[in-house]
Amino acid sequence: MPYAVLLDLVTASLSYFNKKSIVRLSDLRDFFFDKAAVDRTLLGGQNPIVYEVYDNSQPQSEGHLNFGVTVISPGKVGSEYFMTRGHYHTKEHTSEVYLGIEGEGVILLQRRSGKVACLPIMKGRVIYVPPSWAHRTINTGDGKFSFFYVYSADAGHDYESIRKSGFAKLVVEKGGKPEVVDNPNFIA
Amino acid sequence: MPYAVLLDLVTASLSYFNKKSIVRLSDLRDFFFDKAAVDRTLLGGQNPIVYEVYDNSQPQSEGHLNFGVTVISPGKVGSEYFMTRGHYHTKEHTSEVYLGIEGEGVILLQRRSGKVACLPIMKGRVIYVPPSWAHRTINTGDGKFSFFYVYSADAGHDYESIRKSGFAKLVVEKGGKPEVVDNPNFIA
Repeated sequence: MPYAVLLDLVTASLSYFNKKSIVRLSDLRDFFFDKAAVDRTLLGGQNPIVYEVYDNSQPQSEGHLNFGVTVISPGKVGSEYFMTRGHYHTKEHTSEVYLGIEGEGVILLQRRSGKVACLPIMKGRVIYVPPSWAHRTINTGDGKFSFFYVYSADAGHDYESIRKSGFAKLVVEKGGKPEVVDNPNFIA
Repeated sequence: MPYAVLLDLVTASLSYFNKKSIVRLSDLRDFFFDKAAVDRTLLGGQNPIVYEVYDNSQPQSEGHLNFGVTVISPGKVGSEYFMTRGHYHTKEHTSEVYLGIEGEGVILLQRRSGKVACLPIMKGRVIYVPPSWAHRTINTGDGKFSFFYVYSADAGHDYESIRKSGFAKLVVEKGGKPEVVDNPNFIA
């Protein structure tokens, strides 16, 4: 059935979702560059929430669209900003649309060919992620970074490619400002 | 390539689009209930813009997503509020997501089985239009009614089914307020 939910365009909160994911630092150990820094934080007894996803999941069949809100906490691991795992869609011909709601960040995009792109996201910026581009979002601000997304419900998430090879670029703080640098650990 | 556009969350204007459609009263003669009222307006030398669509059209192939903004002018034809043609998707298994930005209106939804639904849209309301539901948006307010949409680029638009049979319901003004009434001309 058709249905409606409320999206607060200031706080990015959704009045309804049927799937909530909470991703903590321990879930992301393989994705951050500085694994020693991850381990130090975890050994210190801290395991902060890095991001949350509030999803309206539809039946996982062709034609349906999932939508929801991702909220990335402010923070860093070493000099690398808090971020999502990043993924290719399992069905690589599917795409995604993002709309920035709160805070500021960037989206890092990458093709299997090695081609990369990086676009800022903030309130009101719409990003088109075309087929075959892996995508990761990164909070480069001091507060929450939240955006609304829509993608094909049958797209699927291939996190393993990213776990194994990483992104070609890292987004790190240098002198108080975000900078996009080469990832020395990237496996092309 | 991935790209970004700005969506003004107050005025609903888009900084970039690659397809603009302007739909005037004369284009909608077959869709309004009171065709005599349409003809009177046109004969009086007026042919107002009923709605505009600012689209980011992607390649029309499976997996891509089109997105953009629809702006419906305030106004009425007889007692029926200004509205879009309404359509089924040609690929009926495709769906759509709406996000209200400015003004107020409703979305009328209908299945070929005759099942109908009607949901209000206003700033921050997200509407999920599942597969197989025809959908028409209607401006029930005094100002512009604008919303952001995302749908499969290969969905296609079947306006002919609506031209021939209409929607089972009309949204009309009664005593200064919108009311959903049966369409006497509806062909089930």
